[in-house]
Amino acid sequence: MTQKTFPTWPEAAAQLIAVATGQSPADTVIQGGKWVNVHTREVLDGYDIAIAAGRIACVVPDAASCVGPKTKVIQAHGRYMIPGLCDGHMHIESGMLTPAEFARAVIPHGTTSMFTDPHEIANVLGLDGVRMMHDEALMQPVNIFNQMPSCAPSAPGMETTGFEISPEDVAEAMQWPGIIGLGEMMNFPGVSNADPKMLAEIAATQNAGKTVGGHYASPDLGPAFAGYVAGGPADDHEGTCEADAIARMRQGMRSMIRLGSAWYDVETQITAITEKGLDPRNMILCTDDCHSGTLVGEGHMNRVVRHAIDCGCDPLVALQMATINTATHFGLEREIGSLTPGRRADVILTSDLKSLPIETVIARGEIIAEDGTCLVDCPHFDWPDAARQTVHMGKALGPDDFKIPAPTGANAVRANVIGVVENQAPTKALQFELPVTEGRVQATGEVCQIALVERHRATGAVTNAFVSGFGYDGPMAMASTVAHDSHHMIVVGTDVDHMAQAANRLGEVGGGIVIFKDGVELALVELPIAGLMSDRPATEVAAKADQMMQAMRDCGCTLNNAYMQHSLLALVVIPELRISDLGLVDVRSFEFIPVIEPLS
Amino acid sequence: MTQKTFPTWPEAAAQLIAVATGQSPADTVIQGGKWVNVHTREVLDGYDIAIAAGRIACVVPDAASCVGPKTKVIQAHGRYMIPGLCDGHMHIESGMLTPAEFARAVIPHGTTSMFTDPHEIANVLGLDGVRMMHDEALMQPVNIFNQMPSCAPSAPGMETTGFEISPEDVAEAMQWPGIIGLGEMMNFPGVSNADPKMLAEIAATQNAGKTVGGHYASPDLGPAFAGYVAGGPADDHEGTCEADAIARMRQGMRSMIRLGSAWYDVETQITAITEKGLDPRNMILCTDDCHSGTLVGEGHMNRVVRHAIDCGCDPLVALQMATINTATHFGLEREIGSLTPGRRADVILTSDLKSLPIETVIARGEIIAEDGTCLVDCPHFDWPDAARQTVHMGKALGPDDFKIPAPTGANAVRANVIGVVENQAPTKALQFELPVTEGRVQATGEVCQIALVERHRATGAVTNAFVSGFGYDGPMAMASTVAHDSHHMIVVGTDVDHMAQAANRLGEVGGGIVIFKDGVELALVELPIAGLMSDRPATEVAAKADQMMQAMRDCGCTLNNAYMQHSLLALVVIPELRISDLGLVDVRSFEFIPVIEPLS
Repeated sequence: MTQKTFPTWPEAAAQLIAVATGQSPADTVIQGGKWVNVHTREVLDGYDIAIAAGRIACVVPDAASCVGPKTKVIQAHGRYMIPGLCDGHMHIESGMLTPAEFARAVIPHGTTSMFTDPHEIANVLGLDGVRMMHDEALMQPVNIFNQMPSCAPSAPGMETTGFEISPEDVAEAMQWPGIIGLGEMMNFPGVSNADPKMLAEIAATQNAGKTVGGHYASPDLGPAFAGYVAGGPADDHEGTCEADAIARMRQGMRSMIRLGSAWYDVETQITAITEKGLDPRNMILCTDDCHSGTLVGEGHMNRVVRHAIDCGCDPLVALQMATINTATHFGLEREIGSLTPGRRADVILTSDLKSLPIETVIARGEIIAEDGTCLVDCPHFDWPDAARQTVHMGKALGPDDFKIPAPTGANAVRANVIGVVENQAPTKALQFELPVTEGRVQATGEVCQIALVERHRATGAVTNAFVSGFGYDGPMAMASTVAHDSHHMIVVGTDVDHMAQAANRLGEVGGGIVIFKDGVELALVELPIAGLMSDRPATEVAAKADQMMQAMRDCGCTLNNAYMQHSLLALVVIPELRISDLGLVDVRSFEFIPVIEPLS
Repeated sequence: MTQKTFPTWPEAAAQLIAVATGQSPADTVIQGGKWVNVHTREVLDGYDIAIAAGRIACVVPDAASCVGPKTKVIQAHGRYMIPGLCDGHMHIESGMLTPAEFARAVIPHGTTSMFTDPHEIANVLGLDGVRMMHDEALMQPVNIFNQMPSCAPSAPGMETTGFEISPEDVAEAMQWPGIIGLGEMMNFPGVSNADPKMLAEIAATQNAGKTVGGHYASPDLGPAFAGYVAGGPADDHEGTCEADAIARMRQGMRSMIRLGSAWYDVETQITAITEKGLDPRNMILCTDDCHSGTLVGEGHMNRVVRHAIDCGCDPLVALQMATINTATHFGLEREIGSLTPGRRADVILTSDLKSLPIETVIARGEIIAEDGTCLVDCPHFDWPDAARQTVHMGKALGPDDFKIPAPTGANAVRANVIGVVENQAPTKALQFELPVTEGRVQATGEVCQIALVERHRATGAVTNAFVSGFGYDGPMAMASTVAHDSHHMIVVGTDVDHMAQAANRLGEVGGGIVIFKDGVELALVELPIAGLMSDRPATEVAAKADQMMQAMRDCGCTLNNAYMQHSLLALVVIPELRISDLGLVDVRSFEFIPVIEPLS
């Protein structure tokens, strides 16, 4: 790791003082801007910012005395100077990009600080994988703080992940330089029931003086919620309505409200501020999950802030929710999140606070993007083979691996089928009567096959079941090694030959997403890092993802967010039916159920 | 030290969850109150608070399920439930009381958290003295967080203190359990000039992740202020006008506004919120210095909050400034400062938010005061002899020690005289022509003598000079071992016999304040701990202090706050003239000047 180092405030103090008092020239001076002050919630016209050692030395009406012959002067030309934007909760893996390429994609959008939970890679590569994400994060020209994943596996006993995270892992990670806290504590029933392992992870984080991320994905605001709050999580981003946001803030948590590629939870919750008039200091904006296509086409935290403003939020309050509120939450308010002395010089120049065009982005005192173009190197970690070769198939799969045998003599069976519902993460537990030919159960009509291909331990095991709702017709198969949260391989198809072909293809390229139709590969997104991420630029990955989604449509799928539906089919913590390497899971009861039953 | 221990949040988590989910009974339930929520800035009627292990388990509309046979139930009867009040910056020594007796005095006023800088004792006993204060603080039933003193001596080279504080001392103290940060960085010219010792102390604090207290006692908001801010102090309580408060908050510091016994800086600064409408999150209420008389007769933080409300501040905002704002500033917002799960159960019951009667005070779940009466033990540290015998006179002083010799043959001289100004901390540098008789200069008219008696190293040294403005007449002398900041002994008198008598009397009793007139001891306040504090109850100390102030009036002094004027005459960081063990100091130039000059 070649960590991007720069002086701490105490290391830089003497230099900052010399600049602030006019005794030494600044490295950089931004002249003549409108100072957006997120501490006082004011816009102050006619200010200069003097920068040294990557930090702000002073913000004064006239920093001419800080300008020396070598000082770089940036003319603000009366534009607004706002703090670099902070994403309070997000997963880099959701962009299918490495931290470096994710950073490169969001820098032109003004995101200079990210609080990221690498829990996808934790399932594939364990603590080592988290460390690699952490190390690449520290190499970047912007601030990527890592949260230590808390829940791998997400549902112990219901799936086998590549690795498990223990309280000892958490305690160890808390000593790493780039770890800011514990990643979202998704096992909310565990916390409400005082599960010792979950409480031990929380304790290790609290004892290290760091922030415990929450994830309370339930509308129940009764005793279960009270128990979760008493357990210690300090924030939550799973609220979906105003009552959720208010309950969290009243109980002393920070309410993180998200606008991701497929999350729309800002509009329904920000009314706690805009209509109910609550103190906004405990509300934080975040993205949670953004696809590369969103990053390329729409933006990142700038998109969230704009949206909050469009929802009626005062622009200064919306900016506080993406800067100082976030910094304060993570104990970093004297390090990032405002344009004041000592802080990292992360500054955006914009000519309008409402439409928020991101014209110039400065991080640690250097211009890193201008007019949508990233101008800075985002160094790549030297990902080892262990991270690049994570699709352990055990053997080449054949059509037989995907055939679902029928009970002897049966002509038809009743099948428990995972029912995909458009625009909803939960699935339905459906039952279909399916015919039997040549001794195997046939997927027909709207039902097709789904398989979970074990890929962590090369067991060669394939778990087969049925899924409905994608609308596929004709011989096809789609395979993905992005398969939340265990990230084995999910193969969905209408034809067992195509399913074997798709699975083997991902084994060959080291992971990603592939679609075959009529024997032809329609699309391939290579994700060589842990089978989850690409180290190619976001534009390239987004283009391939677009092809992939077009290929899904070409196979007959008209669902909105169809790829997300595919990749979530193994997420055994969201009801009702899911598939894991251990079988078909009824998440309502956390029990395994048979794929086929005799017709009664 | 018998530290008052109670479980941390992680230690208590399982129990808190069990109570919050109705599976275990609470230790205590407060039923039927109005929940003053300082996170959302709301009052919510009809809430219960369930408490276990000294912490809040849940705050819910109905905690009946948390009441078991052994649960103590407190009826709120519809009263307001507010968080225990926090004093953001204060000195315990100013009350002339030990931490235990200070706590006992303020508990009935609802103060449950104090951020205290024991910098007076640091001058007398060094790091050991700070540790004793720290240890007694940790024994108390309320929260006394200590800040490590930063500036002993306050003016290096201009005085000799009992001990000096080094950056190494600061680094060591940061590891103690009860140290919350660095005490007010009073050497503001040092910071603005990047004094390496001051920056090393700040760095040791920042590197420990703790809060650096500020003290910028200058109206200059130009480059000197910018340099100070760049140096790292995170707050300041020396502002006196609205512009001061605004400048501090804009620059990312917290503005602490104080109402002490003799400080009236709330009314002039709170307009930044009440009139200018700035975000109030960065304003904090504090007392800085309260005499025991104020504690007995008027109150403590309740007095400050009431005053802020009287100044037009919304009561909920004023309460935020004395609770969550303070907690957040010191990184304790998940420990104190609000009535939410996991936090220490520090609760006040009051029937009116504006007049703020402190009816019941609960700390860590126990009722500790009711209707003005403290109901709890405040244990005393076993102060060692080294702390009780700190008046090292070297010898019995006689009248000759106080005689100021005249140049041979002079009949009169010009004397540089410290001019006390009523109601102002700064003095004036005055000159008087004084007569000479029997070879010594005579104090006449409004001029009397002042002496600084060395008491730390038993040198027997006495520094003599002149002071005007007290109005004393007739033979008298007053001596005090409270003598900011070096805390030698200040003796002021009209007669050298009385001066010797007063000084020797304090040597005899181990420190305090004494007044003699016409050969009779009019008043004595014994302060045996470091010559600064009494371990007797506040009522007793306040009564003796009243006698002492009456005795000053009986000697002819009509000044307001006359005792404070006396005790500040050695404070060699406030202009214009002061006395130290090294001579007469012109604080405008930081130079020693002669006491007498020949008549020109």
